[in-house]
Amino acid sequence: MITTEIKNKLIEIVGVSYVFTDDETLNEYGRDHTEDLVFPPSIIVKPASTQEVSAVMKVAFEYAIPVVPIGARTGLSGGILAIHKGIGLSLERLNQIIKIDEQNLQVITQPGVITEVLQNAVAEKGLMYPVDPSSKGSCFIGGNIAENAGGARAVKYGVTKDYVLNLEVVLPNGEIIWTGANTLKNSTGYNLTQLMVGSEGTLGVVTKIVLKLIPAVQHNVLLWVPFFKMEQAAAAVSAIFRAGIVPSALEFMERDAILWTSKFVEVPDVYLKHENEAHLLIEVDGNYPNVLMSEAEKILSVVEAYEIDEVLFADTTDQKNTLWKLRRNIAEAVKQNTVYKEEDTVVPRFELPKLLIGIKAIGDKYGFKSICYGHAGDGNLHVNIVKLDMSDELWQTEVPKGVNEIFQLTKSLNGTISGEHGIGLVQKEFMPIMFSDIELNLMYQIKQIFDPKNIMNPGKIFPSTYQ
Amino acid sequence: MITTEIKNKLIEIVGVSYVFTDDETLNEYGRDHTEDLVFPPSIIVKPASTQEVSAVMKVAFEYAIPVVPIGARTGLSGGILAIHKGIGLSLERLNQIIKIDEQNLQVITQPGVITEVLQNAVAEKGLMYPVDPSSKGSCFIGGNIAENAGGARAVKYGVTKDYVLNLEVVLPNGEIIWTGANTLKNSTGYNLTQLMVGSEGTLGVVTKIVLKLIPAVQHNVLLWVPFFKMEQAAAAVSAIFRAGIVPSALEFMERDAILWTSKFVEVPDVYLKHENEAHLLIEVDGNYPNVLMSEAEKILSVVEAYEIDEVLFADTTDQKNTLWKLRRNIAEAVKQNTVYKEEDTVVPRFELPKLLIGIKAIGDKYGFKSICYGHAGDGNLHVNIVKLDMSDELWQTEVPKGVNEIFQLTKSLNGTISGEHGIGLVQKEFMPIMFSDIELNLMYQIKQIFDPKNIMNPGKIFPSTYQ
Repeated sequence: MITTEIKNKLIEIVGVSYVFTDDETLNEYGRDHTEDLVFPPSIIVKPASTQEVSAVMKVAFEYAIPVVPIGARTGLSGGILAIHKGIGLSLERLNQIIKIDEQNLQVITQPGVITEVLQNAVAEKGLMYPVDPSSKGSCFIGGNIAENAGGARAVKYGVTKDYVLNLEVVLPNGEIIWTGANTLKNSTGYNLTQLMVGSEGTLGVVTKIVLKLIPAVQHNVLLWVPFFKMEQAAAAVSAIFRAGIVPSALEFMERDAILWTSKFVEVPDVYLKHENEAHLLIEVDGNYPNVLMSEAEKILSVVEAYEIDEVLFADTTDQKNTLWKLRRNIAEAVKQNTVYKEEDTVVPRFELPKLLIGIKAIGDKYGFKSICYGHAGDGNLHVNIVKLDMSDELWQTEVPKGVNEIFQLTKSLNGTISGEHGIGLVQKEFMPIMFSDIELNLMYQIKQIFDPKNIMNPGKIFPSTYQ
Repeated sequence: MITTEIKNKLIEIVGVSYVFTDDETLNEYGRDHTEDLVFPPSIIVKPASTQEVSAVMKVAFEYAIPVVPIGARTGLSGGILAIHKGIGLSLERLNQIIKIDEQNLQVITQPGVITEVLQNAVAEKGLMYPVDPSSKGSCFIGGNIAENAGGARAVKYGVTKDYVLNLEVVLPNGEIIWTGANTLKNSTGYNLTQLMVGSEGTLGVVTKIVLKLIPAVQHNVLLWVPFFKMEQAAAAVSAIFRAGIVPSALEFMERDAILWTSKFVEVPDVYLKHENEAHLLIEVDGNYPNVLMSEAEKILSVVEAYEIDEVLFADTTDQKNTLWKLRRNIAEAVKQNTVYKEEDTVVPRFELPKLLIGIKAIGDKYGFKSICYGHAGDGNLHVNIVKLDMSDELWQTEVPKGVNEIFQLTKSLNGTISGEHGIGLVQKEFMPIMFSDIELNLMYQIKQIFDPKNIMNPGKIFPSTYQ
């Protein structure tokens, strides 16, 4: 319960203009991009600095009020849903890029900067932040850290965790720490930085971020490869790496993913043919165009061993943008079409065909259809289970059984249940598939060290037996 | 105290041939490559499997006996020194590469495999494990994980932590866990894998390791660049990256480092001139020789802006080997010449000249000489403080003050006190320079979760106020 006394303390910290209790705002901040779930907090507070975040946390700690750190609300696992009410702590005003360090190829930023804004700012200096989530145009870099976001270029450049050097974190009791140093290497005590990355706002509030950058890459080549059989598309993925090539993107899309999306994105007919069950979108990048052409040819010689239709080279920026837009809008297109649930399976990439075939078989068994697409180069397959005309009853009873089986399959293939979306609210009951009680207990005890009053985004990651 | 009862229990687990209490063996396992320190354990036990490690840990846990996991004893921070006696747990019999997974570009290995043996085994399959510590010919991959080892190629390829996907760990109470999944991406709970990497044997015993591999790189070009002034060599380092080039190695060596080493390694005169204060050894690698030549030329045009002597291209494998041998043998050469202490400073790379100048000034102030060299591309400078004819008294009183100042300087340059050697025994009292009490307490509480009886390599990492 947020009493008037508490509310006044919060107003004193951030100012009356930055505390909200109206239903409209609460509802707005009570949902992200996870299905149609809405869990509004009791109050929204928008601090403007690390010190204000710290002061808010001290109040929350004193009164044992749950706090949910809120970014751009583009999450896909319900990480920001305030299931226990409390304070919704929006980081949107911590939106400054503090310093682009061209000498050291680093950037220091606040968490509320949109990822693409950050990318563009460093690109102007000839630098590159290559982590590239599909939501980059709207997500915050802070949210990327919370979920350890990946995206299309992870296959060559790695995920968020691979770029985070150091973090300023406000602990649940309001204390402020730094997790490491601004160095490329660090063997100085336990890696608190990597413990924070992907902890989904359950250990503290990240208020400053030091990221590694790389010199900007100048050129890329994009291939659009249609396969008659989707399993063959999945199988071609690992063959490309085994040929010694590391593409900068290797995306898989099954037919319906692109057909549905083509309703929203204008796509020339040549890119879409009904007889093709799946496509791979393959990019290679680098600074030497000749090398890229030679790598593209190697890729061609690999995929030609499968039953493919005509491969298209995207030559112009327009063509490239069209294809990427097609890829990036799949999630939104599914959402517009039907009620759905999204899973974020990941396996060692050679196991992709088994995963894909298994998912389809599980769908058949339980009576649901799925749209599969994702970062195949990483073995990361997004599975959108779509309701369409399925009855509410079957949707409620059969889908969870199917999801459970999909995750069991993922585990049996040496994979895991989330590659880049996080566990958050919607996957937490499945954690025992991946981790033993011993392992989950270790994680939960770590949470208790950071957050002895369990106020920091409670009810996330851990199955409900833990709360 | 290891009683006869305990000894018999250990013999029952691993067999009588694999338990040792003779002085010679205890002394042998009581030292690593850290200065001339010797701390023998009370007993050496050599298990052959995860199950045996688990059984040994159960005995240790029951009787609250300290356990030090021991690898190849090549560590440089005293991580394996049994300062509290107890069981020395040698992992040398867990020496099998379990599976090279060519389909998924992964390897599953036991910890007691020599890093270079692992590299050669995967190279035979056209794959590459690029982490390349100077001690690769003798160190164990398990020790690399314990210390988060780096090495010459980290500048392009990253350090050990960037290749570890999943670990099997025996906890101090003998329970066996897996920390993650065999996937390139993972957003499934807290990152226990990265918590283990670099934890220096203080949280558990790593018994299986899943590493990411990359397709083997075919070619490289090596440049030997002599500088008249050492600060200019240090300054050239960041300029190379700012020109958009990421070398696969970028090593700095001051004059005495190579002159001393040339007594042990046969080096053609052309590589060594007294008038050159420092050298950079610069490698670029890739699959296209033309590209490498073009990058080498770009590097040349960058370094030519500094006062350099004649640059040498190493064309032949022999020439390359000579230069690498020269670089890799510096530590050993210093050791042969004099008593010394080695520090492992790391800063953002543009700060290298300030670090170098500062270290020399601190040496002048306290009356000691230092030999500096290291992985300049990472900002990682090894500082060998050499005793030579310094009196024992000054060595005891002045050097610690100087080290403290060097670390304060490192911190002020946004760096840290260990880039790749770890904290272990010899740097633990300096941890408060890097971390506040709050931060150290968080780390120590994490240790307590894993190791409630403080039996797992006690007395390491944390300053003595913690024990």
